[in-house]
Amino acid sequence: MTRLAGCELCALAVEPIWKNELFSVILVEDAAYPGFVRVIWHDHVREMSDLADADRLALVEAVNRVELAVRAVMAPHKINVASLGNVVPHLHWHIIPRYADDAQFPAPVWAAAVRTTDESVLAARRALLPQLRADLVRRFTV
Amino acid sequence: MTRLAGCELCALAVEPIWKNELFSVILVEDAAYPGFVRVIWHDHVREMSDLADADRLALVEAVNRVELAVRAVMAPHKINVASLGNVVPHLHWHIIPRYADDAQFPAPVWAAAVRTTDESVLAARRALLPQLRADLVRRFTV
Repeated sequence: MTRLAGCELCALAVEPIWKNELFSVILVEDAAYPGFVRVIWHDHVREMSDLADADRLALVEAVNRVELAVRAVMAPHKINVASLGNVVPHLHWHIIPRYADDAQFPAPVWAAAVRTTDESVLAARRALLPQLRADLVRRFTV
Repeated sequence: MTRLAGCELCALAVEPIWKNELFSVILVEDAAYPGFVRVIWHDHVREMSDLADADRLALVEAVNRVELAVRAVMAPHKINVASLGNVVPHLHWHIIPRYADDAQFPAPVWAAAVRTTDESVLAARRALLPQLRADLVRRFTV
């Protein structure tokens, strides 16, 4: 296991929803995007294509399970998935539920906000998070 | 094969660098991002998790081959990969070479531009595109 001193994903500060020896699944604390999940590879690897085939498939499969859980529980209009890592070059994936009324839709979540989602709508989505956690755990433990 | 009338990715307007029965690989015409490549699934499918397992693995493998070609030829500081589809909800992947001097670095390419890359630098990267095309074809035909 390669670890880099000072890398914020090598020393993960949040408690994962689920983890195994290869990766952790965490719920992102983003007030505008309830249900935003990250999958973080444990080894300090820079790019997806640096992984051995079996590891890459394991990570892809994990991202897919997260996508299925987010779709099932959060019922978004669209799923966005991305692996960027320009700021923290330690392999991780973003899985983001998107809605027509979210802060940036239809632009990516990294674009400028174009609206503020109603607090009641966000509260209803946040109320689904315990169910999302349970569904994620279920999909990774079967 | 499902096709949707009016979908710009069901009726692809550009000539692919390479295609098979499942997907096309195209070079994106983006003045600020030479070497930006997309992989477009032919069937009109909305989400990655809508694909059958074998199809999903074929698409993941294609994205990985593109990433390897872009790394080998363009020598970027970082690779960004994403499947968003909020505007055109027809499954496609963006593979983007990122450099410390590019228009948005370290933000995602969808954020506001923070600089203009020197034209001489962009010209040098554009000069690599014939080599990128050749490397992509090679990686998909072996």
